[in-house]
Amino acid sequence: MQKKIQNALISVSDKSDLKKILYFLKKYKIRLISSGGTFKEIKKLGYDCTEVAKYTKFNEMLDGRVKTLHPKIHAGILNNRSNKKHQLQMRKNKFKNIDLLIVNFYPFQETVLNKKNSNYIVENIDIGGPAMVRAAAKNFKDVLVITDKNDYNSFINQLKQNKGSTDLKFRKNMASKAFGFTAHYDSLVSNWFDDELGIDFPDRKTITGKKIAQLRYGENPHQKGSIYIHGFDDKELGLKKISGKNLSYNNYNDIFAGLEILISLKSTGTVIVKHANPSGVSINKSPIKSFQDSLSCDPVSAFGGIVACNYLINKKIAKEISKTFFEVILAKKFDKDALKIFQSRKNLILVDISKYRERSNYQIKYFNNSFLVQERNKKTFDLKKLKFVTNLKPSKQELKFAEFAMNTCKFVKSNSIVISNKFSTIGIGAGQPSRVDSCKIAVEKAKRFQKKKLRNSIAASDAFFPFPDGIKKLIQAGVKLIIQPGGSIRDKKSIALANKAKIKMVFTGTRHFYH
Amino acid sequence: MQKKIQNALISVSDKSDLKKILYFLKKYKIRLISSGGTFKEIKKLGYDCTEVAKYTKFNEMLDGRVKTLHPKIHAGILNNRSNKKHQLQMRKNKFKNIDLLIVNFYPFQETVLNKKNSNYIVENIDIGGPAMVRAAAKNFKDVLVITDKNDYNSFINQLKQNKGSTDLKFRKNMASKAFGFTAHYDSLVSNWFDDELGIDFPDRKTITGKKIAQLRYGENPHQKGSIYIHGFDDKELGLKKISGKNLSYNNYNDIFAGLEILISLKSTGTVIVKHANPSGVSINKSPIKSFQDSLSCDPVSAFGGIVACNYLINKKIAKEISKTFFEVILAKKFDKDALKIFQSRKNLILVDISKYRERSNYQIKYFNNSFLVQERNKKTFDLKKLKFVTNLKPSKQELKFAEFAMNTCKFVKSNSIVISNKFSTIGIGAGQPSRVDSCKIAVEKAKRFQKKKLRNSIAASDAFFPFPDGIKKLIQAGVKLIIQPGGSIRDKKSIALANKAKIKMVFTGTRHFYH
Repeated sequence: MQKKIQNALISVSDKSDLKKILYFLKKYKIRLISSGGTFKEIKKLGYDCTEVAKYTKFNEMLDGRVKTLHPKIHAGILNNRSNKKHQLQMRKNKFKNIDLLIVNFYPFQETVLNKKNSNYIVENIDIGGPAMVRAAAKNFKDVLVITDKNDYNSFINQLKQNKGSTDLKFRKNMASKAFGFTAHYDSLVSNWFDDELGIDFPDRKTITGKKIAQLRYGENPHQKGSIYIHGFDDKELGLKKISGKNLSYNNYNDIFAGLEILISLKSTGTVIVKHANPSGVSINKSPIKSFQDSLSCDPVSAFGGIVACNYLINKKIAKEISKTFFEVILAKKFDKDALKIFQSRKNLILVDISKYRERSNYQIKYFNNSFLVQERNKKTFDLKKLKFVTNLKPSKQELKFAEFAMNTCKFVKSNSIVISNKFSTIGIGAGQPSRVDSCKIAVEKAKRFQKKKLRNSIAASDAFFPFPDGIKKLIQAGVKLIIQPGGSIRDKKSIALANKAKIKMVFTGTRHFYH
Repeated sequence: MQKKIQNALISVSDKSDLKKILYFLKKYKIRLISSGGTFKEIKKLGYDCTEVAKYTKFNEMLDGRVKTLHPKIHAGILNNRSNKKHQLQMRKNKFKNIDLLIVNFYPFQETVLNKKNSNYIVENIDIGGPAMVRAAAKNFKDVLVITDKNDYNSFINQLKQNKGSTDLKFRKNMASKAFGFTAHYDSLVSNWFDDELGIDFPDRKTITGKKIAQLRYGENPHQKGSIYIHGFDDKELGLKKISGKNLSYNNYNDIFAGLEILISLKSTGTVIVKHANPSGVSINKSPIKSFQDSLSCDPVSAFGGIVACNYLINKKIAKEISKTFFEVILAKKFDKDALKIFQSRKNLILVDISKYRERSNYQIKYFNNSFLVQERNKKTFDLKKLKFVTNLKPSKQELKFAEFAMNTCKFVKSNSIVISNKFSTIGIGAGQPSRVDSCKIAVEKAKRFQKKKLRNSIAASDAFFPFPDGIKKLIQAGVKLIIQPGGSIRDKKSIALANKAKIKMVFTGTRHFYH
């Protein structure tokens, strides 16, 4: 049903593009009500407008906290135009209809981002705005609410098409958007309060996001998908695409897997990811060496994967990377020469991650009508709690190698076994329901591509070995140091096996399941 | 800072326990303001109370849509008690402070659940309540807001401890809860509108949940975790725990993986899950046979896993299941004899899933300050789009077996290869960065536990084979029918290999990545 607009209330904190819309409001003889900065702007632009206080005959008070929270405003919005009783009450009170509401809220989000003090932030929680927007959205059968200036053009088209009226579908769409907006707003306010109070797991948790892209499709072409940005700072993900086609769902998924490991590295390093599991990780003072070593862990799997580098890519590194086919390269900038080398590969996606940073301490897993929330796994192990359970003990340097292996293991899907040599992985066994199978896979990979480095290698396990069979496999392959949480009832057997083989074993007491 | 309460506004749709609180409000000489049903209830319980309309001197109108949306109410809530200008304005207007707000909203959620018509549902979107709650929560420095009757007792304790006053920390906590509540409420309203309009990926997406349990810990003991229930129907997940210890984070994660596969089965079947991957899946007219076959796929990995059954567990099945150590058993009811058999195992968790059903069409993946949303993968393949690419073609019956294999493959972490015999998996290769490795794992598993069944077996692959090496491995093992999406530039080589070996191959055109 089309509805004519007679009176409009406008209250916007973002005043850009107001001019465009005022022209059409006047054209269709729509009377304006406003206050404060918006009122001044409208007058400045040369349009007639009634101040809210004049309209309600109630002076705004409490520094503007109370001005539109008035029956004349809210009845004007909320009355059902086709309800006779409502209309009688409106006439009795001499209240007029408000048929259009154009409102943005106080910029709560920006206030938080600018790290103002708590009082100032609380002062910027909008009360009057959301009350009106919610009222107008509820009453979409009669009222139009615009909360996003990106909708100005389609609103103007509505006015033109319908000669000053709007149609029901448009109003309902805008109502949906309005509630999307109030939900988003209150979710941010609620998260801010929880942060302030140090509440990790509130009774009601609301996660809210702004759509940044409709993706080509989801994990597979027959599934639709989109990506949303979350949190106060929702301008960018910190992933600046420099060239190549648009990122796909699976690209994002792999990028996230790569970034999580990359961020955990304590020095210059490279992570190669395929199907959300690392196929190779290496740290080295020399960036190019770290790339080469991460690649040589499993050059077959790396094919078509993504490379994540926590360093600048120069000509030399770009040349080296170019020898292998990758889909995405993440780096802390690419220099001009590097870009020149990559430019021949049209489909290759280059992403600058210089501005990427960790913003959430939580992981959320969604399934059907539930979601699991947990703290991120930021610990590898406590040095003080290590137990040196074999006759031979590792040196300090070996412990550092073992820490690298365990840190990588943390990010490989469980059950996971990572075999490494110094600061490079040489065999990764991922995602097996039984631990001994993960050992087998890790050993086979290492034998295939890195046989020489298996001697004197180090193995990390994300959880304890329920049987000594996995330990045996690793020893046979040449592993000389095993790091694992410990805690199995058969630990003694494993320790005996390690002692017999004269290798070293360390228990961390810290498990790292990751699914 | 402690704040004395003088005036309270109460407006609750859930009137239970009101009596308890009124006694204490009277004791501390707190004056009451209310309206409608709450007003009547307060009077009925024998307490003094001023009606909102009398208080504001404004008759409520529009069937109650406008009653508290009045400056006297909102200034009473919103004024800053330590701001001289505010206090001057309050006195000038003869407005009194409202220091306590006890409000529940109209039951929007229940209205949606009861599937009333759209008009009725929209009518039940509360406008006045959230406006007051948000105002009071914003002004928590001076005002207390209670939105949950579970907080009545701590509120009463506050009154007692502070002789009619409340302290700042309590008020701030309740404010946080209030915004949690308004965010939750508007998120539900927003999701309802999106559903109504068929909007899959709105500009602003808000996911909201009610905490149902603080878990022992997250994926690992050093990570805290909780589980939330999501959506309109947030009374239960449909997972009724019958016995055993509390479900852990990893239990839930495995249960979800198991349920997703179980729900996809078209007949009586069993799924065994370990580390969120299936270790065996089987369908069979005989439930016990389906259990046995799902177990024999990989009896080693099944150890300590979870069993998901879409049938009732009777004595005979219970006896059979009892022979293996499992952590969780899901079933559509357990009969008395079965419960008796399981009761000796104190730690075993039994979950009745009779009431479990699919409620969401989406999957959400959260990472740092973003989340990916996609439609769930509900399709296995289109029969009409199948391409029979080899000289030999499968029979109708074989196609049904192949469909079972592909359906299971869909739920195994990529890259995945599933080898099956009739309607039972016999080898599952999960989560490898290279496809040939997944083939190797699947074949090795099958050889170890199901060697005889490898002859005439069927293999499904979640994505195409980039090289014929994987196909070769499968043929050598005895696979006679391969089902895969097809689409590699080397498909011809794979087809030639299949023809040479006189096996059958089908291309579906439907990929099933799952990470």
